[in-house]
Amino acid sequence: MYSYRKELWFHINTRRGLVNITDAVQEAVTESGIREGLVLVNAMNITSSVFINAIESGLHEDFEIWLEKLAPENPHEQYKHNKGLEQNADGHLKRTIMGREAVIAITQGTLDFGSWEQIFYYDFDGMRDKHALIKIIGE
Amino acid sequence: MYSYRKELWFHINTRRGLVNITDAVQEAVTESGIREGLVLVNAMNITSSVFINAIESGLHEDFEIWLEKLAPENPHEQYKHNKGLEQNADGHLKRTIMGREAVIAITQGTLDFGSWEQIFYYDFDGMRDKHALIKIIGE
Amino acid sequence: MYSYRKELWFHINTRRGLVNITDAVQEAVTESGIREGLVLVNAMNITSSVFINAIESGLHEDFEIWLEKLAPENPHEQYKHNKGLEQNADGHLKRTIMGREAVIAITQGTLDFGSWEQIFYYDFDGMRDKHALIKIIGE
Repeated sequence: MYSYRKELWFHINTRRGLVNITDAVQEAVTESGIREGLVLVNAMNITSSVFINAIESGLHEDFEIWLEKLAPENPHEQYKHNKGLEQNADGHLKRTIMGREAVIAITQGTLDFGSWEQIFYYDFDGMRDKHALIKIIGE
Repeated sequence: MYSYRKELWFHINTRRGLVNITDAVQEAVTESGIREGLVLVNAMNITSSVFINAIESGLHEDFEIWLEKLAPENPHEQYKHNKGLEQNADGHLKRTIMGREAVIAITQGTLDFGSWEQIFYYDFDGMRDKHALIKIIGE
Repeated sequence: MYSYRKELWFHINTRRGLVNITDAVQEAVTESGIREGLVLVNAMNITSSVFINAIESGLHEDFEIWLEKLAPENPHEQYKHNKGLEQNADGHLKRTIMGREAVIAITQGTLDFGSWEQIFYYDFDGMRDKHALIKIIGE
């Protein structure tokens, strides 16, 4: 069994924003030389998500509106967490809905995806350096 | 390390519906010959979920009502994604809540489950052919 | 490839409650002797979650209030599942939001975490014995 590790770094210039990281993950899989196995991709910060869905800007806007409905940012005072130094309680909740991680099969050296699957990093508390982990195991 | 790959295909005859796939996943584990490892089961379409919960029809009706409350199908016009060819934005959101994938331990050739754990495939945009991936790694 | 299996047992003395299990998971990783690999940690009961977020009591209170808003316990009669022997339908829904499992990378014998990542077990139907599974594979 072999393993490979790589970090991706982000600095989103808005409070919230998402980035398609599919190519970066495939690149890591290729670098690893692993042909059959699993790749774990996870946010290393607790107000960010890694998730799999479609590249479609309308859908991404729908996610934004929907997450704001289920876990609204304002008013900040509604959250006990915001009594501390951070004002990002909504980001912890939004990340919970979108998920921390994706586990993806590697088959013949390639991400084993259905037609529309793409991997995204979604930051809910941007304007700072944040990172995600790619860990690959297999043979 | 060995690996094994299998797809499951579905054609749900309603917009939404769920199928118990526990036996199919155990069958794949048995076919693989792998005794100790992990199995990843994921939807390969982005409006479907694989999740673990109980076989109980009352609970499944509760899921249906609850998901419709958190991510309502109608009116279709509330979603930007529905301005395109598809009318399934709610399916993308419902799948986000239920999750894309389950990772399950294999111990002594068997799905290592608590008493009530069962694996389900849940389609939120049915009436078409869709698939899920089973990828097993271990020894 | 090596594998290691361990169960953690819980008996939460309230209907809902959470426990930080980060040290217990790291201990299992150390016991396994595995230096590079993946660890799966999952609830073995279907009204409990394993999730990764911050140790911060204000945030934990926010989770409690938020989950009760998205999937309220009362009135029990609103759920078909509660017509049976159990009155825990809300627990099945809350666990769906928080997730069943976490998959974590192991690098150099250590949980490969960002600064604030901690693993929690969250019970939504306590006052009984429940368990979680730790399964480690790697080398």
